[in-house]
Amino acid sequence: MKGHRRTLSVDLGERTYPIYIGPGLIDEPDLYRAHIASPGVMIVSNDRVAPLYLARVRAALSDYRVGEVILPDGETYKNLTTWNLIFDALLQQRYGRDCTLVALGGGVIGDMAGFAAACYQRGVALLQVPTTLLAQVDSSVGGKTGVNHAAGKNMIGAFYQPRAVLADIDTLNTLPRRELAAGLAEVVKYGLIRDPDFFIWLEEHAGALLARDDVALSEAIERSCRNKAQVVAADERESGQRALLNLGHSFGHAIEAAVGYGNWLHGEAVSAGMVMAADLSRRLGWIDQTTVLRIRRLLHNLELPVDPPASIAIERWLELMAVDKKVLDGSLRLVLLRAIGDALVSDAFSTEQLTATIEGAC
Amino acid sequence: MKGHRRTLSVDLGERTYPIYIGPGLIDEPDLYRAHIASPGVMIVSNDRVAPLYLARVRAALSDYRVGEVILPDGETYKNLTTWNLIFDALLQQRYGRDCTLVALGGGVIGDMAGFAAACYQRGVALLQVPTTLLAQVDSSVGGKTGVNHAAGKNMIGAFYQPRAVLADIDTLNTLPRRELAAGLAEVVKYGLIRDPDFFIWLEEHAGALLARDDVALSEAIERSCRNKAQVVAADERESGQRALLNLGHSFGHAIEAAVGYGNWLHGEAVSAGMVMAADLSRRLGWIDQTTVLRIRRLLHNLELPVDPPASIAIERWLELMAVDKKVLDGSLRLVLLRAIGDALVSDAFSTEQLTATIEGAC
Repeated sequence: MKGHRRTLSVDLGERTYPIYIGPGLIDEPDLYRAHIASPGVMIVSNDRVAPLYLARVRAALSDYRVGEVILPDGETYKNLTTWNLIFDALLQQRYGRDCTLVALGGGVIGDMAGFAAACYQRGVALLQVPTTLLAQVDSSVGGKTGVNHAAGKNMIGAFYQPRAVLADIDTLNTLPRRELAAGLAEVVKYGLIRDPDFFIWLEEHAGALLARDDVALSEAIERSCRNKAQVVAADERESGQRALLNLGHSFGHAIEAAVGYGNWLHGEAVSAGMVMAADLSRRLGWIDQTTVLRIRRLLHNLELPVDPPASIAIERWLELMAVDKKVLDGSLRLVLLRAIGDALVSDAFSTEQLTATIEGAC
Repeated sequence: MKGHRRTLSVDLGERTYPIYIGPGLIDEPDLYRAHIASPGVMIVSNDRVAPLYLARVRAALSDYRVGEVILPDGETYKNLTTWNLIFDALLQQRYGRDCTLVALGGGVIGDMAGFAAACYQRGVALLQVPTTLLAQVDSSVGGKTGVNHAAGKNMIGAFYQPRAVLADIDTLNTLPRRELAAGLAEVVKYGLIRDPDFFIWLEEHAGALLARDDVALSEAIERSCRNKAQVVAADERESGQRALLNLGHSFGHAIEAAVGYGNWLHGEAVSAGMVMAADLSRRLGWIDQTTVLRIRRLLHNLELPVDPPASIAIERWLELMAVDKKVLDGSLRLVLLRAIGDALVSDAFSTEQLTATIEGAC
């Protein structure tokens, strides 16, 4: 075993599971063995990640009957049609109710394989092996799975917890710099919503993170997962504080929908969305302009966009935000900031204030 | 309120819900009001049931914003493509996370609407209003939802509990006699697996049931639901005794798949399948020929098929049964009988004995 491994637990009663963070994890048979009780394993991956890591995961799983299904890469394929390919493979290869799905890839693979595990024969075991920073700090923790619908992102899905998460930081070495930055947007989010010390740490380590310093990355992933795990443990099904994890996401989803899923990376849209949420919070008098600028600066230093695309008309913005899941029969509720490290869900803004934020940002 | 109402509870902790059984229930606003907390309701029905009952349900729901989505009728449409029409309607009509889906129809509608409720925005409220006997005694109780895959029945789905079930026995008056009989197959099943007194009651009331006698139907539905509710409460996710509810279903699913879903009604296939399970139990020496004949006679008196179609080759039988969900990585396990009212899951039969049952039945 190599060093620097960190382990933390997502505490969900009988669904409690561990997250392992460190280098070289995907090559360790013992880690899989500890969490796969079934004889059959189906690896779900995509055509970008599979050439890099599939053979290594297969080698570590040599004790098992292993099948694979390789999906096309990208958010545009996160739909019911692609999802059904997983069932085609499971049934063609005669996997029973006691198989385990291993999600090997980024957030899209984690979402689709996780949702397939939730629904195949009404639920089979799941292991998450996230290979992007975004997936390691966000989508593989907390059990949200699903696919997009033409009319909205993540509209079809399930809450479904994995048996374990293996976040191998070595896999980040093959990640394009733009995707690394996109993952860091979600890292910054944890600082903004509930961990002011972490925000300061990020301001100090932005350069080290972009340079993929092992220790800095492990620290950032662990603190992110720990924050998310605490939120999820307190509110698994998003009736309360879990909604804070959506900071920047209502604006971000509108950006992604307007420019077409996949043209902006999710984390990039969230970055611009968090600045917009900060701006709206400022208009409500909850934070000052200095704080907004401090948030913009950190995201900018992490090579993330801090303004939305100028091409979206105001009517389109309001239309897209109205179908967001956070709308509770008519009233738009957004995650806003009272300070760095202190967020809340609120509808205490006027349409004029929201419009001013959107127009000011464009 | 009209008389003869019966209420029973499915005891599942915080997911406990009531089943109401009786005449005229679909017209009572109070019954809906007690279980719908959201302002928005989407009725999911099909093009056979909607002309009969949709207007009445809408009238009873006049306090709510009510939308509808009418699916094509039949098991052949129980697939992901039809399922997605529910999401199209929900999103086009801007239903949020706090809406309630009302499933108005038979087992197929209950399965698809239930599965849509499980997955729309990762879970919205569900009310089951079953309008067939099969749905009233079986599919609306217990939370199994899902759709078929080309390679197998109910392969994609979720466990998801409704807020309440309204089983209005008046709706059975428009049910074709063949479908009434098909529902009675599942009623007989409860007697066979765990309620020998009920089996005797059914032998005595077969004629009254086929004549749609109100009191007999209410009694049969209540005793069926009570049996199923007890099983489900003890084993919500089918790790143990809930599997007994599958008596006749492995054989039955093979019949349905071989002749094409919808050509045999589900209950008809289960009827023939239960006789096959009894025959295999006899070959194992667990029950005698007299018992097998007694089971055949009751099902025959209920106008149900007691033999499978002769057209299925033995190889096809074994192939179809091998993809059944009850196969745990290679070993076929079936629900068999030790007596009327006493069932168990077993793989204690040889391929020769299984083959003899299939060939003897054809």
